[in-house]
Amino acid sequence: MAILCVGSIALDSVETPFGRAERVLGGSAVFFSAAATFFSPVRLVGVVGDDYPHGELAFLAERGADLSGIETRPGESFFWAGRYHYDLSTRDTLETRLGVFADFRPTIPERFRDSRYVFLGNIDPRLQHDVLDHVDRPEVVACDTMNYWIEGKRKELLTLLERVDILLVNDAEVRQLADEPNLLKAARWIRDRGPKIVVVKKGEHGAILFADGWAFFVPGYPLETVFDPTGAGDAFAGGFVGYVAQMESLAADELRRAMVFGSVMGSYAVEDFSVDRFKRLESDDIDARVREFREMTAFEAHVRGLRV
Amino acid sequence: MAILCVGSIALDSVETPFGRAERVLGGSAVFFSAAATFFSPVRLVGVVGDDYPHGELAFLAERGADLSGIETRPGESFFWAGRYHYDLSTRDTLETRLGVFADFRPTIPERFRDSRYVFLGNIDPRLQHDVLDHVDRPEVVACDTMNYWIEGKRKELLTLLERVDILLVNDAEVRQLADEPNLLKAARWIRDRGPKIVVVKKGEHGAILFADGWAFFVPGYPLETVFDPTGAGDAFAGGFVGYVAQMESLAADELRRAMVFGSVMGSYAVEDFSVDRFKRLESDDIDARVREFREMTAFEAHVRGLRV
Repeated sequence: MAILCVGSIALDSVETPFGRAERVLGGSAVFFSAAATFFSPVRLVGVVGDDYPHGELAFLAERGADLSGIETRPGESFFWAGRYHYDLSTRDTLETRLGVFADFRPTIPERFRDSRYVFLGNIDPRLQHDVLDHVDRPEVVACDTMNYWIEGKRKELLTLLERVDILLVNDAEVRQLADEPNLLKAARWIRDRGPKIVVVKKGEHGAILFADGWAFFVPGYPLETVFDPTGAGDAFAGGFVGYVAQMESLAADELRRAMVFGSVMGSYAVEDFSVDRFKRLESDDIDARVREFREMTAFEAHVRGLRV
Repeated sequence: MAILCVGSIALDSVETPFGRAERVLGGSAVFFSAAATFFSPVRLVGVVGDDYPHGELAFLAERGADLSGIETRPGESFFWAGRYHYDLSTRDTLETRLGVFADFRPTIPERFRDSRYVFLGNIDPRLQHDVLDHVDRPEVVACDTMNYWIEGKRKELLTLLERVDILLVNDAEVRQLADEPNLLKAARWIRDRGPKIVVVKKGEHGAILFADGWAFFVPGYPLETVFDPTGAGDAFAGGFVGYVAQMESLAADELRRAMVFGSVMGSYAVEDFSVDRFKRLESDDIDARVREFREMTAFEAHVRGLRV
């Protein structure tokens, strides 16, 4: 089942302890699509400037992404430059130029309006509302957001939550949104406001899914070399939502596997700059890492006699 | 198989957002024993002052702890006072008075020298060496340490590692010890220096075990109310080492289960002040939480057709 994905399409300049990359593909919608297209077709909606290297998105088109919803406007593409610290867990933003993204008003092409799976990347909640207004019968709406909108557009975000099935955010955002340090309570607070499923992304610490009366935990894959952490969370979302859309199911067993595919795709994202790792990723690589995740987490629960 | 446990025995005064407790049972050896005795007998070695309420340790004796190695010396017991912040992830130490612990020189009673399982709690590495010198044929030596010794007694710690089978430390300590931000590389660095098994405790984020060519991950149990985080890491160690000693095995499948028992015991530790939760814990409670961990982490790894 095709996924309508609306989000940022950017050019990133990134410095890590391992090297640097200049004006490479970035943005939440691009990372999402690079991962999700391994599972489901993606209909991409976003805006770029007339400096954007459209040809570099060819790998996405080949894998089933419909790029016809990318609008090109006069001006500069969204540009972000950042530098990661030695331990890669913190980064400095060196430069942000919103360019044409500053006035982004997503236009959903008529042919995309029948989309039943929707991923709302991290953009202004008012625009996320707009997108949903232009989809006929969305069945599964997944959504990301960030501290900027939680602070500045709280009211719009809360009404948006009523229209969302799956919220995928990081642990700090969950706590901030619910104003509650305890993750379990914060997730319940959010679930009471709409999303039946809350997925908390915790970077190297993995992710937790909270649903009705149950939770599921997936670790981060322990990598020897984290080359560039940019986009890992978006790739996680791409793997998760991509798998859910492929299965057309929110059954618990499928959601568990979706979590694993999310973590697998997040782990591949960080192995190279930009979306480069996905360009040479094979389904066998994904399978192999899923099996590693199983090795890493499975245990027999039979309990031999405790002493008490 | 009985475990010789050497470590701190303290009195703690703790403030959390949920209340306060004055001069309650604390110390790494006590938290370790409170958890480990559910699995294996413990032979406790430590020192207290003449102000120590020995009667409060009765619950450990009833569960199979041999307390005859606790030395009482004139003076004050090790005292620690701390206050946890709102989100319970950080704490301020309000007061530390080492008392008789300042001159602690563990004396291993003759009858404990046949111990084959040893847990070296977080004390001066020179004393940890001493303990091992006074055990006839230790088969499995598990060890904890902290930043203070990593900085100040690095040389002694490194020679100690050659005598250790299982190092259980937190993620910051692993990184500091190996001077390496990448956890996988840091664990390998440590494994090259002795311990075949490195267990990295990450608090609410769970724990990872690194062994020869494989790793195992256990999440932290998501609790709605973390009442008092003190001692969770020591209780984790107690569950882990207690189970390993019960099974008398370092087989991979047993180590996986040991990780789960560790996380289960850590999760119970934080549900009340001091070791109070362990006083009323039943083996059924442990079983139930093990099953919950399985629910929270198990997935079928069969992969339906990826699109690539």
